[in-house]
Amino acid sequence: MVFATAVGAGTTQPAQGEDPAWLHEPGAPFSAYGQPAQTERGTTRRIGANRAVAGNGVSFTPLDELEGVITPNGLHFERHHNGVPRIDPARHSLTLHGQVEQPLSFTVKSLLRYPMHSQMLFIECGGNSNAGWHTEPMQRPAGSMHGLVSCAEWTGVPVSLLLDEAGVQPTAKWIIAEGADAGAMNVSIPLAKMRDDCLVALYQNGERLRPENGYPMRLIVPGWEGVLHVKWLQRLELADQPVMARNETSKYTELMPSGKARQFTFTMECKSLITSPSHGHTLPRPDIYQVSGLAWSGHGRIRKVEVSADGGRSWAVAALQTPVLARCFTRFRIPWRWDGRPAVLMSRASDEHGHVQPTRAALIAERGRSGYFHYNGIVSWAVDEDGSVAHTY
Amino acid sequence: MVFATAVGAGTTQPAQGEDPAWLHEPGAPFSAYGQPAQTERGTTRRIGANRAVAGNGVSFTPLDELEGVITPNGLHFERHHNGVPRIDPARHSLTLHGQVEQPLSFTVKSLLRYPMHSQMLFIECGGNSNAGWHTEPMQRPAGSMHGLVSCAEWTGVPVSLLLDEAGVQPTAKWIIAEGADAGAMNVSIPLAKMRDDCLVALYQNGERLRPENGYPMRLIVPGWEGVLHVKWLQRLELADQPVMARNETSKYTELMPSGKARQFTFTMECKSLITSPSHGHTLPRPDIYQVSGLAWSGHGRIRKVEVSADGGRSWAVAALQTPVLARCFTRFRIPWRWDGRPAVLMSRASDEHGHVQPTRAALIAERGRSGYFHYNGIVSWAVDEDGSVAHTY
Repeated sequence: MVFATAVGAGTTQPAQGEDPAWLHEPGAPFSAYGQPAQTERGTTRRIGANRAVAGNGVSFTPLDELEGVITPNGLHFERHHNGVPRIDPARHSLTLHGQVEQPLSFTVKSLLRYPMHSQMLFIECGGNSNAGWHTEPMQRPAGSMHGLVSCAEWTGVPVSLLLDEAGVQPTAKWIIAEGADAGAMNVSIPLAKMRDDCLVALYQNGERLRPENGYPMRLIVPGWEGVLHVKWLQRLELADQPVMARNETSKYTELMPSGKARQFTFTMECKSLITSPSHGHTLPRPDIYQVSGLAWSGHGRIRKVEVSADGGRSWAVAALQTPVLARCFTRFRIPWRWDGRPAVLMSRASDEHGHVQPTRAALIAERGRSGYFHYNGIVSWAVDEDGSVAHTY
Repeated sequence: MVFATAVGAGTTQPAQGEDPAWLHEPGAPFSAYGQPAQTERGTTRRIGANRAVAGNGVSFTPLDELEGVITPNGLHFERHHNGVPRIDPARHSLTLHGQVEQPLSFTVKSLLRYPMHSQMLFIECGGNSNAGWHTEPMQRPAGSMHGLVSCAEWTGVPVSLLLDEAGVQPTAKWIIAEGADAGAMNVSIPLAKMRDDCLVALYQNGERLRPENGYPMRLIVPGWEGVLHVKWLQRLELADQPVMARNETSKYTELMPSGKARQFTFTMECKSLITSPSHGHTLPRPDIYQVSGLAWSGHGRIRKVEVSADGGRSWAVAALQTPVLARCFTRFRIPWRWDGRPAVLMSRASDEHGHVQPTRAALIAERGRSGYFHYNGIVSWAVDEDGSVAHTY
């Protein structure tokens, strides 16, 4: 494998034709709230909704069209069970109750008075990349298979402050979080995690939350599976055991080869994905290309990302864009000289706690063939002689 | 001055009235590109355009309504001289010429093939906060006076790579950058800075640039004044001297008390601003309040932000949100117990290179009364007995 360090793509050819009109006519006036350029309107979330229930499904972040680590708010992935409620914040509140000394209720206005914490964090759906369990490699753009993960700066009130104010009874071990959608989506989260680093978020990338991301308040559970980040948060109930809700029993659990099911598999594992080049791209000719992608781990910081261009026989260490932050996207990049022969590009992430992204084969050996959630196997992109890029196993 | 550490704003009062409809009706379906909640549509850029020339003016980021450090793309400040050109990226190119070995031309497509670099950086207009030079304190929200500064993750191609490819002649000392708006806005930037850390940016907060922020390509000049971050970049000309353009002679220069004018005052100085509470806010009663604000320095990292509640007689050190990054917004926060008496809130930033934000009096002593650009004096908010907050000197 040959990795290169530079590229020359400038041309000495002068611009052709008449001056475009925008060089001679005054441009558009100021705008109160900006939108993407007309010529970029094709960069959208990719929606996969239930045909019978329009508000049940997902929309994917188009990771293969983005760069850096921030996901702009308009493109943050969605997973809804019953659509996006249009909540009047003046009529919404969060109730903290159950095994507490004093049940409390918080409005947006009251939460805004608490100390805030900001953190750049990824959120990944437990079902992200689940097509990786298919027998044949799904032929879709990288974002349309792996884009149920996004990264934003979340700002909110530490849950620990609210717990301290209410007073937690010693019997409490779990918190049951519930959203204010018509499905009243609920899940159970260990109290220790909630005390440790969870937030009731009010802001996303600087501005107030978007409706589809939980406006006016959302639970943030750093590094843990997306379903726990309850949107439109309206209730936190302290209990001595989990509630055994639909989304922690019939869903978001996994049948293992032993015949038993895994449950409460909270942490999103160490993972990476080459976003460019990736499925659907075409390399026009043998030349130097910049391999770029994302790595993340629910355990902490990414320590290393290795890239292979020969299907995993040899590996080179990619550069990591700084700062490398815990439970946040890390952008990796490495230049690669394509010689025109078939190649298989792969990336393999390692985190600071020693977790290494497994091969698909190793993942299947461990988890069996009934997997659906928590797919974090290495993703392989096959570059054909004609420069086309496709998903391969 | 008494600084406090906690707050209790939860209420034991249960929610009143009938269930809102959103708890019982399916919500809205998925959206391709999300927008702010209907109830947050009042959070917009605040436009100040020339009455005669609609495309000449500014729009301010509403800093007093935001939290964290990222400015969402829809709210990034604008400064245009002749409106926002609607550029077809297929017909746009960047020409690198002048004192080079080989003139080169780059399209968006060719730039996308180069190694990329991402960095979270503030951009501040040299004229930001210029109402600070007024004799009377301007009574406007914090963002409407100081919001010609925003912060985003910019991703692009290091200018040094393009320079290396073209080959720089030894006589070259400056680069003249020009935009593709109808004003052909141009400025001169020292070659050394361009080599050091400047970017031709293609992405802003993960997605392609917004039209009003330079789509399809913009020069990024970390920590230096906004006018240098040429939008719609179409030309970089290497020269042995600056071009002495309008925006570096009649504008963006400053008459000093000596009668001489300062020119090429590139670096944006160490500065901070309390965004909450700030002008227009009202504290409902004596209680604990969270003081929150932003600090930044074009020289590097913020080292310390001090906050005073007694008009500068005593100071306390605020907490800095991590990571603290060079030439990026740093969010600071400190709780404050308001006793109901008149108070004057101030913040004072220091950076890692020893620069300390000056008082307004010190700034005027140094710069005189003809100042317009580079105002970085300490901002004071007066809290009245009735809880109202106003700008004061």
